[in-house]
Amino acid sequence: MRINAFSDVSLRVLIVLAAAPAGAEVMTSTAISVQVGTPYHHVTKIIARLRELDLIDVTRGRAGGVRISPAGRRVTVGWVLRTLDTRTDVADCTTLHGDCPLLEGCRLRRALARAREAFFEELDDIVVASLAHRPRGGSTTQSLGLSIPVL
Amino acid sequence: MRINAFSDVSLRVLIVLAAAPAGAEVMTSTAISVQVGTPYHHVTKIIARLRELDLIDVTRGRAGGVRISPAGRRVTVGWVLRTLDTRTDVADCTTLHGDCPLLEGCRLRRALARAREAFFEELDDIVVASLAHRPRGGSTTQSLGLSIPVL
Repeated sequence: MRINAFSDVSLRVLIVLAAAPAGAEVMTSTAISVQVGTPYHHVTKIIARLRELDLIDVTRGRAGGVRISPAGRRVTVGWVLRTLDTRTDVADCTTLHGDCPLLEGCRLRRALARAREAFFEELDDIVVASLAHRPRGGSTTQSLGLSIPVL
Repeated sequence: MRINAFSDVSLRVLIVLAAAPAGAEVMTSTAISVQVGTPYHHVTKIIARLRELDLIDVTRGRAGGVRISPAGRRVTVGWVLRTLDTRTDVADCTTLHGDCPLLEGCRLRRALARAREAFFEELDDIVVASLAHRPRGGSTTQSLGLSIPVL
């Protein structure tokens, strides 16, 4: 089982922003795109959604950019996934001809929904920012072991 | 988060076979394909894999077909998903340029792997066959509330 790409990259963005060293908290969308290894146009959509959720602050202008907000520093992985992975069912309950024929009264669907809740609960105590590496004196890039790809 | 299509339909196939009424346990691939709402060529691949795992018995010939095996009647949802959903990571840890830049020492990956284990554990006690509706006297199709699509 797998989380969707949107929440996957959203978590990466929050981790990168939380790991930014003091004095360099504000990052451009391009820099974030490189650090999370995801195309720019995808990252800009994610930035817009994270801003709606008040998890990041965006400032415009020449010295502008994106930084993690106080709420973003406190948010948990569980909350982010519950909010951003909005697919209703753990299984794909549709077919080429409409709903799965077993859908009515399907007990598998309910069992999978309970299991998904167990998955989320395991992540409800994990603060996203706590996943960021930030050793004293190291730059973000070094501490994350990043090799910046040439885009 | 979502399970992959292969394990999703595999579970459906086992449920349908487990629900087959006495005297009609042997079903053709075509009939299974209709009942699970999935194209025939996809279902035949799933039948081959379930046979490898000894979860179904396949007999050839004019009166041949597919039926659930004793092991198939005992198997749990957790076991099926652990076995058939073989994607390594809960997040997609690759990008267009190779591995995710955050992969080295990534604590998110480990947190997601622990959560996946919680997801599986929730399903380790649920026997697939127990999810099949099979009221006394009702045919499988009626009991599953199926409307057979015209393929």
